Amino acid sequence: MIFYGDDSPIAALATPPGQSALAVIRTSGKNAVELLAERFSAPGKLKTVAGNTIVYGWMLGKDRSRLDETLVSVYRAPKSYTGEDGADISCHGGYAAVQAVLKALHEAGFRDALPGEFTFRAFMNGKLDLTRAESVMEIVSAKTGKARAGAVRRLSGDLEAEIRAVKEKLVRVLAGAELFLDYSEDEYAEADADERSGMLPKRELAREALAELRELAASFRIESLYQEGALAVIAGRPNAGKSSLFNRLVKEDRAIVAESPGTTRDWLEAWIAVEGIPVRLADTAGIRDSSDIVERTGVERSIELIKRADVVLYIVDGTVGLVDEDKQFLHSKEIAGKPLVMVWNKGDVAREMTETPARAERVSAKTGEGVLRLSARIAEALVERNAGMESGRIGVASARQKALVDRAVEQVADALDMADKGKALDIIAPSLKEAVDCLGEITGEVSTADILEVMFSSFCVGK
Amino acid sequence: MIFYGDDSPIAALATPPGQSALAVIRTSGKNAVELLAERFSAPGKLKTVAGNTIVYGWMLGKDRSRLDETLVSVYRAPKSYTGEDGADISCHGGYAAVQAVLKALHEAGFRDALPGEFTFRAFMNGKLDLTRAESVMEIVSAKTGKARAGAVRRLSGDLEAEIRAVKEKLVRVLAGAELFLDYSEDEYAEADADERSGMLPKRELAREALAELRELAASFRIESLYQEGALAVIAGRPNAGKSSLFNRLVKEDRAIVAESPGTTRDWLEAWIAVEGIPVRLADTAGIRDSSDIVERTGVERSIELIKRADVVLYIVDGTVGLVDEDKQFLHSKEIAGKPLVMVWNKGDVAREMTETPARAERVSAKTGEGVLRLSARIAEALVERNAGMESGRIGVASARQKALVDRAVEQVADALDMADKGKALDIIAPSLKEAVDCLGEITGEVSTADILEVMFSSFCVGK
Repeated sequence: MIFYGDDSPIAALATPPGQSALAVIRTSGKNAVELLAERFSAPGKLKTVAGNTIVYGWMLGKDRSRLDETLVSVYRAPKSYTGEDGADISCHGGYAAVQAVLKALHEAGFRDALPGEFTFRAFMNGKLDLTRAESVMEIVSAKTGKARAGAVRRLSGDLEAEIRAVKEKLVRVLAGAELFLDYSEDEYAEADADERSGMLPKRELAREALAELRELAASFRIESLYQEGALAVIAGRPNAGKSSLFNRLVKEDRAIVAESPGTTRDWLEAWIAVEGIPVRLADTAGIRDSSDIVERTGVERSIELIKRADVVLYIVDGTVGLVDEDKQFLHSKEIAGKPLVMVWNKGDVAREMTETPARAERVSAKTGEGVLRLSARIAEALVERNAGMESGRIGVASARQKALVDRAVEQVADALDMADKGKALDIIAPSLKEAVDCLGEITGEVSTADILEVMFSSFCVGK
Repeated sequence: MIFYGDDSPIAALATPPGQSALAVIRTSGKNAVELLAERFSAPGKLKTVAGNTIVYGWMLGKDRSRLDETLVSVYRAPKSYTGEDGADISCHGGYAAVQAVLKALHEAGFRDALPGEFTFRAFMNGKLDLTRAESVMEIVSAKTGKARAGAVRRLSGDLEAEIRAVKEKLVRVLAGAELFLDYSEDEYAEADADERSGMLPKRELAREALAELRELAASFRIESLYQEGALAVIAGRPNAGKSSLFNRLVKEDRAIVAESPGTTRDWLEAWIAVEGIPVRLADTAGIRDSSDIVERTGVERSIELIKRADVVLYIVDGTVGLVDEDKQFLHSKEIAGKPLVMVWNKGDVAREMTETPARAERVSAKTGEGVLRLSARIAEALVERNAGMESGRIGVASARQKALVDRAVEQVADALDMADKGKALDIIAPSLKEAVDCLGEITGEVSTADILEVMFSSFCVGK
């Protein structure tokens, strides 16, 4: 079982594994600097320097042999990421050096950090609220500048401020209501019926809060589009130019090189950035181009892929035009209701466009003509599917936040509904109270250990 | 063309790309800190803090928008890796954050660092000699603790010291010879024949140096075994248990997880650490297990792989024993002269071992019995093939160093040979002089721009 919440010394590799110039091993916790000093060539200096200072030296093995040359950044509580004492060890990148330093730290008394444990400690020590803690992971996984920009605004506390502002409104409504509830039984009984029922004060303020909460809830779909990305699948008859278009799009829209390693691919695919949206572009051609036995599996996989697509790019050979096979596919149940972008390919030599089920873009994968316009169309189709429009305001980014905003919306709507129906304040107040709690839970003012564990354990180690 | 050697401000990602808690962008060069300050939320502090200090703040976009929250480690010349002013920017790991920060740095006037350019500057500024500079890359690419330990000793300057000691000896021999050469023509002519020819003074010292140089040259093969690793290929008849043994070895001998990304694999393979030697273990079974058409290609690839192998593990089904097919393979030309380790598999249920072309290890891939002994055999076969023995002394690690040591060996041997044959000193001296120059080139005292460029351009960027 994961156990967060102590201040024991922890350590973890904070940079990706792999060969590189540098690797950073992060440490934090009680006596972190003192423990590290036991295996450091300049222990006295390490223990006595002021916080935010870099010390040069060697990490040492059990037998005092030199393990690696390092720069150690010393942090002193509370001026550190976690709010605890700690040190970042910058050593040489590469498998063996990192393993050697981690082993030395274990021997000195550090344990491996759990996923998200550094950020968890930062939260527990009041360095970040939960929306900002979550934004840390969003920045790490951001594939495009837009995704990063949204996450940075949340890290800066913009979402926290927005949530607090809405909550403040609800608290004011609730305070108004509770003034009445604080009346003694006698006074309450003395108030007339109008005063007792349907008398939710500051009802307008509650309506305002509800509208803002609904906007926040709506913002989730567009935020997750930018954070999580979308799947675009290229389909079309053989020789329509699927692979050429795939290659062209990967080249024009800067391909995102740094994707998570270890992904298995049964078809050709690449992450590209289409107007700031991370798009996983899949080419079904790769599935078909194979020998006979494989072919059947290939077609089934193509269909699976199309079913899961957020947008389908259907390529027509513009020198041939729409043929029966195209029409059959475009009217099949697999594609029904899917956002569809038609591509009239081979635009440099193609005939005039004829009518197509969706507006077609004339494109030449060969010359690149029309490809930028096609990118814009893909982005448009995705944004439309996800949110109808982009608000430009700061959005809710995690499923956790979204669920809590939804619950708050529901409770405030209920409260207003009851108020409109003339229900008594003591029946309305608990709904408002729960809405306030939901918002408090988003920022982490109200939280239970369970929620925190679930949230932080989805972080990567070293964060 | 690569142009090293100016002190213009450079920047590069120094940690591997990919999602992680942290990424470090390294900068160095003239006005590096001032330029960085233009895009930093706390410019005044950045510009005025002492060296080796960490400053917290945000990297800013052109429009002063926040790009990412960072910790900047400020270094002041000459107390830095490069010997120049510089700063390491620790930002959030992940594609978009790193791209945003790099873009801001470009806008501020930094250019992308060339491969190895940071270390090149460190060398030019006298922070490292060449053997230590090379060891930096060795540490980065070290896959096992043994490889790292050797590189660390070179980084500590052990190899530099060894080379200098040998060179010192040769310089003393040369100085003795030049004493004679400094005689005036007349004096030289007056010296008798014995004095003039075959009079290399301190000949014993030269012989000592030659022996040490030969040991250094021999050390290269074993060092490169630990640094570069070796290819072990598993072969055998179908159902002999190739894949089970592969899986067992990968499990028992800790698999090296952090390998270079992007490697294409047409067969099943994994890097494992066998007694400190990085071994790329390939299973030819993966090639065969496929449909008919693929099969032929598969067999050809198996043979290719075996030809390139440093050691072949030939698996025999111990419940069946050696059959004709096995014998045929074991006497084929592909395997002739290859280090061969025979594995008598299914040792838990196998029959008694019969005679095999090489000593067989009784192993059970299923229970793990005998696998440790098998590892030892693999390591033994590799060390034997590469060096005959391990000396335990510090070794020459790069092909560059090896070539120079070889040339020095040749020249000293020539000189001694000439001396023994009674050649005149003025004929012998240039050989000694060239040997001394070779050794100077190893450490970088004597070097040309061309050599440096070739050497440093093989480094990774950010180093």
